Amino acid sequence: MKNFVYENPTKIIFGKDTISKIGSEISSRQINKILMVYGRNAIKNNGVYDIVLNSLREANIAVVELPGVKSNPVLSKVEEGIELARSQQVEAVLAVGGGSTFDSSKAIAAGTLYEGSVWDFFGRRKEAKDALPIFGILTISATGSEMNGLGVVTNEREDKKWSLYSPKIYPQVSIIDPSVQTTLPREQTVNGAVDIISHVMELYFDGSKNIDIMDEYSEGIIRTVIKHVQVLLSDPDNYESRAQLAWCATLALNGSNAPGRRGGDFASHAIEHSLSVWTDIAHGAGLAIVFPAWMQYVYKENIQQFVRFGEKIFNICGGSDEEKVLEAISRLKQFYHSIGAPVSLREAGYQEQDLPAIADNVAQLGVIGNLKRLQRDDVLEILKLAW
Amino acid sequence: MKNFVYENPTKIIFGKDTISKIGSEISSRQINKILMVYGRNAIKNNGVYDIVLNSLREANIAVVELPGVKSNPVLSKVEEGIELARSQQVEAVLAVGGGSTFDSSKAIAAGTLYEGSVWDFFGRRKEAKDALPIFGILTISATGSEMNGLGVVTNEREDKKWSLYSPKIYPQVSIIDPSVQTTLPREQTVNGAVDIISHVMELYFDGSKNIDIMDEYSEGIIRTVIKHVQVLLSDPDNYESRAQLAWCATLALNGSNAPGRRGGDFASHAIEHSLSVWTDIAHGAGLAIVFPAWMQYVYKENIQQFVRFGEKIFNICGGSDEEKVLEAISRLKQFYHSIGAPVSLREAGYQEQDLPAIADNVAQLGVIGNLKRLQRDDVLEILKLAW
Repeated sequence: MKNFVYENPTKIIFGKDTISKIGSEISSRQINKILMVYGRNAIKNNGVYDIVLNSLREANIAVVELPGVKSNPVLSKVEEGIELARSQQVEAVLAVGGGSTFDSSKAIAAGTLYEGSVWDFFGRRKEAKDALPIFGILTISATGSEMNGLGVVTNEREDKKWSLYSPKIYPQVSIIDPSVQTTLPREQTVNGAVDIISHVMELYFDGSKNIDIMDEYSEGIIRTVIKHVQVLLSDPDNYESRAQLAWCATLALNGSNAPGRRGGDFASHAIEHSLSVWTDIAHGAGLAIVFPAWMQYVYKENIQQFVRFGEKIFNICGGSDEEKVLEAISRLKQFYHSIGAPVSLREAGYQEQDLPAIADNVAQLGVIGNLKRLQRDDVLEILKLAW
Repeated sequence: MKNFVYENPTKIIFGKDTISKIGSEISSRQINKILMVYGRNAIKNNGVYDIVLNSLREANIAVVELPGVKSNPVLSKVEEGIELARSQQVEAVLAVGGGSTFDSSKAIAAGTLYEGSVWDFFGRRKEAKDALPIFGILTISATGSEMNGLGVVTNEREDKKWSLYSPKIYPQVSIIDPSVQTTLPREQTVNGAVDIISHVMELYFDGSKNIDIMDEYSEGIIRTVIKHVQVLLSDPDNYESRAQLAWCATLALNGSNAPGRRGGDFASHAIEHSLSVWTDIAHGAGLAIVFPAWMQYVYKENIQQFVRFGEKIFNICGGSDEEKVLEAISRLKQFYHSIGAPVSLREAGYQEQDLPAIADNVAQLGVIGNLKRLQRDDVLEILKLAW
């Protein structure tokens, strides 16, 4: 178990009918004017928009709106938000939506107080030293952005989907009402489940040793997601399963799963980000394709952990270690296929001749991964396995 | 899954050779003078005392010392600390030791800024609205006090061992270096393990439903503790197992295990506290006696959860539900016995004729428990089962 520092300042308010608490949470922190960031029509259709505006009005908080954040959010929208935050002199940013909205809001909050280009913070080249306070209403559980200091944005001018991290961009308060997620399209539920499982696996397979308690915790999250996403596919209104999935999403990337580990791997995430640059594929769908291919390419680096995964997640008990691992990868792909996630680049509409260029795009980040350090040609091999 | 609010402000610094960071953590918060609270000779024998004082000196922090906190810490020592904190005008309290030292430090930190008697905060009659900042160096992992707002102190004049809670008494920073725990006496390791398992079970058996992710997490902690305490009994210097046990202790009562639950049960803790009033029994030892008896008395209130416990912790698969539960309780007692914890009041030196008076002592708290609400006569039945 490696030395670690653990700290997470975000306050989570979770459950039915909790969204209307946002006004008092913000006003109790002496904030009077906010930038409200959201996507398109979803929050207007499910009633969240009205609840939020009413709550803010009752708390006497002035609102500047920035609608139009899209999935795989783009830098130009962040820049628009920074301009607006400055010109309107807002005191905080409120994200209302899913991970894209939260990530954009974090970049806006950091960029507003920074003289240079906000893009400097991406690719971990600089760390934001300050940010406006961030609040959030989560309406799609997947990325875990509601309780961490991470964000991912696409620079569409440079074809780079990169991440930023700063301890200054943890939301102060995030509200999660799973009941508003019952109206999500089926594929968003599926993509969310894949994203959650992938976050856990990025940490689980990072080459850490002697980490039973964190492995147990990781396996618990994965089993819970596998169970409850299947419930939701036949019963999307099931509140209990929505709640389980929502809390798993937060736990999967709020740092609670990281203590004592080697920092996670995140090569699959880096590769997926380049896939999104190519076709705007949903993050979860891209991960369902990439992660099993990554596992196949790297498992020999720490075969016992992959054996353990097969035993604990899929109850695989027979065969050699190698056979168990290959069976586990196969079972993961079967599971993804069964819930409707793509498991190959081909079925997701990629062209085989684009794979080298996608590998080049990933290689702009330099060497990636932690369990196995991956060069551009390693990435190309993984893409071929994913083909 | 019930609605919940989750927030934990404590920063944890965990690992080998981390204790010397305490000086800079305190001074970076503009604190110049602290009250250092500790027990007796343990921290002088294992070198922690010198490391802490050196670190504080290098950070130019003035130190007022309060030694002499004992296990099952007493109110008179807390009152002595409050006097000292006031007369010496310290700006913060630093606990160096185990749960007793942390709990005493929390009471001192809250009591120093309160005009009335600090005892008002115990038994949850009043909540502390303010407290001096609290820091800690943990040298015995068991109570979880390093990352929560709880404390337990015995009012020796009134024969009451009661708890306090306030969001104001979470430590700002706690440092956990598992390597200093290798010199603990065997029974402290055992008692710590029982305490950790008991904290998890207080939450696990509180009657919550539809809470897979938290049940999975709870079971993972219990299995990890069972595995690693056994390693430590034959190999007390095993750093990895010390680290696993230490982190499990923190997780078991830092709130991470509580979201969506019914608030925990904690009847076994209440009963154990009265046992400690009688004989000064170690908290973990008392819990090893009380908890299985409590399980036997209440399991019919939520039999499926007790069946699940047997399946997930002890791999019990055959028999009726009732048989599985009784087998699980028996296996838990066998495990406690195997690691050297007492499993009956008789073997721990209690007198059978004292049981009614112990039940009376518990009853001063009123009705206790959550899965099943327990009156004084219920408590007496549990004590008889524990006899």
